[in-house]
Amino acid sequence: MALVDRAAKTFAPRPFLAASKQFASGADSPRAYLERCLAALAEREPAVGAFVTTDIPGARKAADAATERWRAGNARSAIDGMPVGIKDIIETYDMPTQMGSPLFEGWRGGRDAAAVYALRTAGAVIVGKTVTTEFAATHPRGTRNPHDPSRTPGGSSSGSAAAVATGMVSAALGTQVVGSILRPSSFCGAVGFKPTVGAINRGGSHDYLSQSCTGPIAATLEDAWAVARDIARRVGGDPGFPRLAGPMTPPSAKKPRALAVLETPGWSVATAGARQELERAVGRLRAAGIAILTRHDTPLVEKIEQALADAMPITRAINEWEFVWPLNDYHRRDATALSDSMRERFKSAEAMEEGKYEELIAERARIRAQFAELAAIADAAVTLSAPGAAPVGLGWTGDPIFVVSGSLLGVPTVSLPLLEDEGLPLGLQVLGFARRDADLFATAAAIRDAVDSK
Amino acid sequence: MALVDRAAKTFAPRPFLAASKQFASGADSPRAYLERCLAALAEREPAVGAFVTTDIPGARKAADAATERWRAGNARSAIDGMPVGIKDIIETYDMPTQMGSPLFEGWRGGRDAAAVYALRTAGAVIVGKTVTTEFAATHPRGTRNPHDPSRTPGGSSSGSAAAVATGMVSAALGTQVVGSILRPSSFCGAVGFKPTVGAINRGGSHDYLSQSCTGPIAATLEDAWAVARDIARRVGGDPGFPRLAGPMTPPSAKKPRALAVLETPGWSVATAGARQELERAVGRLRAAGIAILTRHDTPLVEKIEQALADAMPITRAINEWEFVWPLNDYHRRDATALSDSMRERFKSAEAMEEGKYEELIAERARIRAQFAELAAIADAAVTLSAPGAAPVGLGWTGDPIFVVSGSLLGVPTVSLPLLEDEGLPLGLQVLGFARRDADLFATAAAIRDAVDSK
Repeated sequence: MALVDRAAKTFAPRPFLAASKQFASGADSPRAYLERCLAALAEREPAVGAFVTTDIPGARKAADAATERWRAGNARSAIDGMPVGIKDIIETYDMPTQMGSPLFEGWRGGRDAAAVYALRTAGAVIVGKTVTTEFAATHPRGTRNPHDPSRTPGGSSSGSAAAVATGMVSAALGTQVVGSILRPSSFCGAVGFKPTVGAINRGGSHDYLSQSCTGPIAATLEDAWAVARDIARRVGGDPGFPRLAGPMTPPSAKKPRALAVLETPGWSVATAGARQELERAVGRLRAAGIAILTRHDTPLVEKIEQALADAMPITRAINEWEFVWPLNDYHRRDATALSDSMRERFKSAEAMEEGKYEELIAERARIRAQFAELAAIADAAVTLSAPGAAPVGLGWTGDPIFVVSGSLLGVPTVSLPLLEDEGLPLGLQVLGFARRDADLFATAAAIRDAVDSK
Repeated sequence: MALVDRAAKTFAPRPFLAASKQFASGADSPRAYLERCLAALAEREPAVGAFVTTDIPGARKAADAATERWRAGNARSAIDGMPVGIKDIIETYDMPTQMGSPLFEGWRGGRDAAAVYALRTAGAVIVGKTVTTEFAATHPRGTRNPHDPSRTPGGSSSGSAAAVATGMVSAALGTQVVGSILRPSSFCGAVGFKPTVGAINRGGSHDYLSQSCTGPIAATLEDAWAVARDIARRVGGDPGFPRLAGPMTPPSAKKPRALAVLETPGWSVATAGARQELERAVGRLRAAGIAILTRHDTPLVEKIEQALADAMPITRAINEWEFVWPLNDYHRRDATALSDSMRERFKSAEAMEEGKYEELIAERARIRAQFAELAAIADAAVTLSAPGAAPVGLGWTGDPIFVVSGSLLGVPTVSLPLLEDEGLPLGLQVLGFARRDADLFATAAAIRDAVDSK
């Protein structure tokens, strides 16, 4: 089954900015573009299960309006007419928001979340709500990896990544607190972007954790930037945080002076194939004249590797406590409607000693300060996005060990679909510095060009 | 009307911790205590309009259960059986959350907010939802000042302050982003506590602003501490922020070394009576042997006064931008359902230049750092809570100019009902230092004892 499916692969992510160049002339149009997405959706969705709700008539109507605007020279934004999916923990006024939980079956908040409001105002076409794991945590809700239906698409933004990878939409909103944007992007073969913590307004997204970010999964770096930057322009960042700043047009590639290659605690569990792929990519980067710093030659990199050693347990404990509400309320309402993993999480949170959380966030602040020193000698850090290809089985969304560091650090990160493992997609991760998201994109574009070069 | 009403005054805030000493013996009980609250409610509510929803049968049932626990020696907490009101922007699973807006008539989120969950778990008795101005901003929703029905109770926690002042409940949750806990506490004659920003979990409270805090309005400092500390113990602070820390029992009075008296930008609009009252209070503090520092004798106090000069415009501009969502979504759904002031706010936010917000929060951070220096020479700052008594008229909730500084600073503040103007209540405000809420309570108790002494 898996081999047949992979051999028959007829799908790919669908760039939008490139296509939109034909919209003004009428050679292409948002409506025609949408129909190509809908054809992919009709073909792939039964096997993939990326969506929990769709509104195809609404999408066609919105695409027609965008078509008119492009032809009249009145496009609202670079993403006017872009078909998008919305992770189902993010509110949409016209669809339910069910959070991957039976507790929220049919629930409607009656609002557009900040990011959804921004997308609509920019002219984007909301195709539907994409499958999330339960409350954007770990319990999967059935989406399959489009490259191999026996494998996980990753999570928690499972449906967003699968929908983008198959070209059912151009981009989709995901959220990440551990690895929920970059991991599924890596497993499905799409670009994933987690911005600096706080840089995109999470209002109306039901993720309340201090490391949570909303970010796009898209076909290209440029599309991801256009989506994220347009949202930030219209609704800003989280209250109290600077918004994602930078040019409206996607930053051009800018060759970095130096890159740090991080092994991270993931190195010991990475597959041989994944390690080779990273080494191959690093070889390309060196060949492009970029200085490479590693723990073996640069003491600061070694210090950072040490600081990140406990990224996973620290993140897990922080998240556990921060989930105590609303989990305690859900638990009281109907504990049987929660997955085993959610019930475990609640128990751990309740058992946490007072003061422990405060120690954890202080430790996180120290690790962030340590990482920030790297900016003096490198323009970004690179590593894998996952230990290997998506694992077989739909009961586990895969290991976030390579991407948790960026979440803990609160820095902007991207996953570029440049590597392979077992003939399946694997992401190359690039980590930037807090509030320098545009610089990260310029560096990531240069990395892409260097690694992709023939 | 006003004079008659004031002459006939038969109400007062109702302390709980003191009363609870009789619960174990059965000489008093949570049920009997609740019935006294309900008698006040029956008598005063028609003239005051503090509640938008009540659940009296539910409250009696909860009070009976608390009565059983106290008699069995199994009280869940110091506030087990305490009748409380919940500001109607804070979700309760068993009542609507209507936010003072026709857009949310009958709306139910289906959850208990974090603070409500904590209160229930502690055994508190939820009497009902208290009136809030529209979205906890400025448009009033009809509550009257219990001391004089021709006057505002203040806002936005209008109903919470009026219900506590009249003893309909012991305590009520309010929220403050400018002056919405301390101002109505001052006008109605109750203790108001705004904690350090982030110190009480706002999950499920529909206030998304970076200065917003949830805090109690109560009859006494001790009751306010017990409520706030118990909530923080159970559900922590906002994600990413340290919770309200300190002893579970209310801090004992501790005479401060020195207090800074701040004029703040409010001084120029304070009434003669209010100024005299502050001077009287300061005289008492000096008489108690506490050193008093002012702008006239202490350069750092003068610097802080200067730093706070624009507290109001900075706060207003920050809030305007942070309100852009969800206001943009509400505006699109039905602009006619918004008050004029909300529509104005939305227009201003939309007109704000990109980057301006980021400058404002940077400026706020500088002012906070300046104020923090004061801790080296004083244990707290004191000033008025309002320029005078509650103004006549129900169309305006009064001037927050004295309390906005504490909101901008993110420090813990209390309003003590120790002063009078026009024969009506006026609060003495005490401002502490960030994450030192318990120290503030110890200092405030000493200030109360000194100013109250005969």
